[in-house]
Amino acid sequence: MTVQASTRGLLTEAQEAEIREQREAENRTRRCTVPALEDILYEPIQVLDHGFIRVIDYMGDDAAIVQSARVSYGKGTKHTRGDAGLIDYLMRHRHTTPFEMCEIKFHVKLPIFVARQWIRHRTANVNEYSARYSVLDKEFYIPAPEHLAAQSVSNRQGRGEILQGADAARVLELLRDDAERCYGNYEIMLNERQDGGTIDESHAGLARELARMNLPLNTYTQWYWKCDLHNLLHFVSLRADPHAQYEIRAYADAILDTMKRWVPAATASFTNHVMQGVQLSGGALAVVRRLLAGETLDQAESGLSKREWGELMAALGRSE
Amino acid sequence: MTVQASTRGLLTEAQEAEIREQREAENRTRRCTVPALEDILYEPIQVLDHGFIRVIDYMGDDAAIVQSARVSYGKGTKHTRGDAGLIDYLMRHRHTTPFEMCEIKFHVKLPIFVARQWIRHRTANVNEYSARYSVLDKEFYIPAPEHLAAQSVSNRQGRGEILQGADAARVLELLRDDAERCYGNYEIMLNERQDGGTIDESHAGLARELARMNLPLNTYTQWYWKCDLHNLLHFVSLRADPHAQYEIRAYADAILDTMKRWVPAATASFTNHVMQGVQLSGGALAVVRRLLAGETLDQAESGLSKREWGELMAALGRSE
Amino acid sequence: MTVQASTRGLLTEAQEAEIREQREAENRTRRCTVPALEDILYEPIQVLDHGFIRVIDYMGDDAAIVQSARVSYGKGTKHTRGDAGLIDYLMRHRHTTPFEMCEIKFHVKLPIFVARQWIRHRTANVNEYSARYSVLDKEFYIPAPEHLAAQSVSNRQGRGEILQGADAARVLELLRDDAERCYGNYEIMLNERQDGGTIDESHAGLARELARMNLPLNTYTQWYWKCDLHNLLHFVSLRADPHAQYEIRAYADAILDTMKRWVPAATASFTNHVMQGVQLSGGALAVVRRLLAGETLDQAESGLSKREWGELMAALGRSE
Amino acid sequence: MTVQASTRGLLTEAQEAEIREQREAENRTRRCTVPALEDILYEPIQVLDHGFIRVIDYMGDDAAIVQSARVSYGKGTKHTRGDAGLIDYLMRHRHTTPFEMCEIKFHVKLPIFVARQWIRHRTANVNEYSARYSVLDKEFYIPAPEHLAAQSVSNRQGRGEILQGADAARVLELLRDDAERCYGNYEIMLNERQDGGTIDESHAGLARELARMNLPLNTYTQWYWKCDLHNLLHFVSLRADPHAQYEIRAYADAILDTMKRWVPAATASFTNHVMQGVQLSGGALAVVRRLLAGETLDQAESGLSKREWGELMAALGRSE
Repeated sequence: MTVQASTRGLLTEAQEAEIREQREAENRTRRCTVPALEDILYEPIQVLDHGFIRVIDYMGDDAAIVQSARVSYGKGTKHTRGDAGLIDYLMRHRHTTPFEMCEIKFHVKLPIFVARQWIRHRTANVNEYSARYSVLDKEFYIPAPEHLAAQSVSNRQGRGEILQGADAARVLELLRDDAERCYGNYEIMLNERQDGGTIDESHAGLARELARMNLPLNTYTQWYWKCDLHNLLHFVSLRADPHAQYEIRAYADAILDTMKRWVPAATASFTNHVMQGVQLSGGALAVVRRLLAGETLDQAESGLSKREWGELMAALGRSE
Repeated sequence: MTVQASTRGLLTEAQEAEIREQREAENRTRRCTVPALEDILYEPIQVLDHGFIRVIDYMGDDAAIVQSARVSYGKGTKHTRGDAGLIDYLMRHRHTTPFEMCEIKFHVKLPIFVARQWIRHRTANVNEYSARYSVLDKEFYIPAPEHLAAQSVSNRQGRGEILQGADAARVLELLRDDAERCYGNYEIMLNERQDGGTIDESHAGLARELARMNLPLNTYTQWYWKCDLHNLLHFVSLRADPHAQYEIRAYADAILDTMKRWVPAATASFTNHVMQGVQLSGGALAVVRRLLAGETLDQAESGLSKREWGELMAALGRSE
Repeated sequence: MTVQASTRGLLTEAQEAEIREQREAENRTRRCTVPALEDILYEPIQVLDHGFIRVIDYMGDDAAIVQSARVSYGKGTKHTRGDAGLIDYLMRHRHTTPFEMCEIKFHVKLPIFVARQWIRHRTANVNEYSARYSVLDKEFYIPAPEHLAAQSVSNRQGRGEILQGADAARVLELLRDDAERCYGNYEIMLNERQDGGTIDESHAGLARELARMNLPLNTYTQWYWKCDLHNLLHFVSLRADPHAQYEIRAYADAILDTMKRWVPAATASFTNHVMQGVQLSGGALAVVRRLLAGETLDQAESGLSKREWGELMAALGRSE
Repeated sequence: MTVQASTRGLLTEAQEAEIREQREAENRTRRCTVPALEDILYEPIQVLDHGFIRVIDYMGDDAAIVQSARVSYGKGTKHTRGDAGLIDYLMRHRHTTPFEMCEIKFHVKLPIFVARQWIRHRTANVNEYSARYSVLDKEFYIPAPEHLAAQSVSNRQGRGEILQGADAARVLELLRDDAERCYGNYEIMLNERQDGGTIDESHAGLARELARMNLPLNTYTQWYWKCDLHNLLHFVSLRADPHAQYEIRAYADAILDTMKRWVPAATASFTNHVMQGVQLSGGALAVVRRLLAGETLDQAESGLSKREWGELMAALGRSE
């Protein structure tokens, strides 16, 4: 596998050269390795228009989860079920500590407004590109037309219909114009060209840490982000959820794809139990029991709020 | 004490009314209370042009630190020194857990680029105003002229001389114009007035979670932020440091002022040991010993790098 | 309310006097207060034979959760539903950060083997009595006869039948004898009486930090433990669960009782959604849909493992 | 390198076979590797009488710290100083996040009273052998005679003179006897042999989770423990400190040795700045300046407490 043609535009020539060099390395180790993940190591996977994730390093695999669990349970559980079965048992019963024994490190390029959601996950290690020290690149997220959604009328945090025609065109024009102008004025305030040279010797440039405040929230930033598997699963469960904003969901989906290469058994179990699963309250469980007993009942008789009733019916695949 | 005249402009009428009501509450409690902190409870303390911090709640006081330490040390340490002496001992010997027994909650209004530095402190609880759900107010940070610093030439993250005359005027104009224009276009994209009404019924408005990406990083946001005293001291030690960016230092200084009201003994000890203190390496300590022994030596003979030598001489108040 | 007669034996006279003094305090505060929790503030609630929990301090209430949530959602969600309804929505959709805005501090006396399970909850603040500094009291947990369970034959971590007659008597005798002897030898090694005096002037006493290693794991220790409500709910969900060991469950149940006084709406919602709720996997949900569609199926046809099938049938109240 | 002869007794034959197999693995990877650490991978390093640490896995090296720092500082800092210089700068200025980008996993066998100190470091991942599920091995820590210290008379947490002759012999005998008897009664209560068989078919065995409470705190347990380098440095700074209890210091020293193999530049900088360094308060710094100015002063004139004065004079190598 080589650097994907489709991601070529994402990287500077220097970055591409660095990645080629990293990928050519062939070291020997006594540690466990995951060939399917090694295949894509260092390689950028495109997300949104200018963003990417790439796996920089990893520790552990499905077997490391099992090995840690068996330290906990001692001689007792050896050989009583296969690795995938044990992982599934751990997932179902929320025995989360063995999943913490695996670790992964990503290099991520992402718009600042996405970074602000992402950073709320506190149990991770982060090194972000600092706009106090260095000048940010001229790159902005502009949504593809199919993601230009109107505000939902029913849900305050949701998206509604896709904007069409002139409405869409106007939004794209405003986003592009404002980003261009703000970045241009950022450069003027800095009085510094991208190559570090001074634009106009007769002016003093504003400090970088101040000038950056003129940039809009769709400007791209980048960071190294390192996380253990338990916390990664939690991140994905919240951010690959249909309620998450599309732009962060795109990153969570890309992470989920790399997880399938890295820890396929854990990912399969997680998909079944968490992503495709549902949490029923005691009240909802009582409703299910009554339905199974052949009772016919509606929301008013269920003891559930309208909203919870609607969510339960949706989960059970019942139209109301 | 009443809401300070100077902060009146920071708040909407509704917020002022809410604060007046909170401040009039007079409840009885068996918990420890800190009258000097109660005096300013709920009241906004202005920071920057439109920002503030206000203390919303607190738990514990200097005595609570001592009480927790005495649980640890048991009968042994009772009465062997006064409360302030024990707190000073804990601070000097990095016995940090008793400081975790105090907790404080702030309501903070701050520019987004400051929020992005602040949130890197992970050991705290945060609820931020969500621009997915609601429309952000039209408020931007514009630096006062005395804070419009040029990029430092000697230090990549530092500020240099203050911009003067036309250079300063140009920067302020660019910042104001871009903020105004971006916010105006944010409203056009939303197609929504501040009161929630639709601007133009013939257009569909863009989803809030998308439109916000057009706002610059000096837009104000707000959050509730709750932290234990140990982690608050760590925050202040990094963010009230002269190397911190002025804009977050202004917030850290305001927090330090409230700490003096809340836990005066802990704050005095912290100021002496951490804020005014210095960490000497083994190599720097050896240099100090040689100097005290009457030896004359320069950087080349010291075994220290130029940078560490310079920092040591500055700490010792020696010109080179 | 006064210190419960039943807990008198738990405390030294000095501790009882301290608690009486704390409970007589009547301070004025502008902070929110919770009268039902103030009623039991400082008062020990007995757990096991010599243990207790007592609430030492708290911050916030149900209204504080709502207030924080409304900061996040902004003007948007005001008045759209009552406080209990909003709390229930937050709980159901795992919007956990508003629950972090409440904090509680306990003083807990507990056997060391329970403390070792408890401390695995990392997101809390702890000050434990230090046996390096002070001599531990002569108090051991000896199970009540109805908790002297045999090892389960079906479940490696579970308990089976209750031991009877001579079997029970023998266990209790061994536990008491070994605890008595180990503690006696601890004192001999220390060469120190409980009042601090030397037992035998002709011998040197072993350092406390070493002598403690002779004590068994049912020796009581104590600590201050402070936690936010979100993490407290997580603690209770794992430790008040029927799979938890009885001895820590007894503490989790006592904490759940104090939560009902403190944050009744959050506790009611938590009980319904988490304690009485159930997580169904995608596979289990598919089985429920088939059953609701009138299909008859057994484990082999379900696609579920025997264990998950059994758990699902139990949740649905179906005998197999 | 092969499994050290000296550690042979620490391991069961099954464990030795497993380690031999792990060490023979030779995988290919594109990740960075550290040959000096690979040399000792999986191999137990003895600590105390029956304990050990062994490195199970690792992520990153000195270069990974540098790489992460350069993401933060951007193009700006490239090539301005060497790797070791940059690491030293980060260490001196408490830029801790790049150190979080390295991770290491240990398998540790340790006495329970040491485990109780160790677990207070919350920012790590742990899987401990569970005595709820499995029977603990018959292994206890018995101090070597040169570590049998008396209680210090001057320092409540410290050790004083080493016990001699009959005093030492008596302590060792008591520790051995009580450990033997408690373990013997643990087996009787369990009614289970080490091989899992029942001792006496006419009795019911007590549940493992209960029987374990009879074991003393010097019983050995084991765990997998995973930690990032920043938090590992913090652990070592507190636990390899002369004030730490000898028994945990022995583990911290062994960890420090493995760090020298893994990240030699970071370890050298840490040793200089933290282990051999000293934190001076503002008051202590003022004293140093006065001394350097040629002033003669004593504690009473210094403004320092007796204790801080004594600590400062010790750091400066001055007898009083």
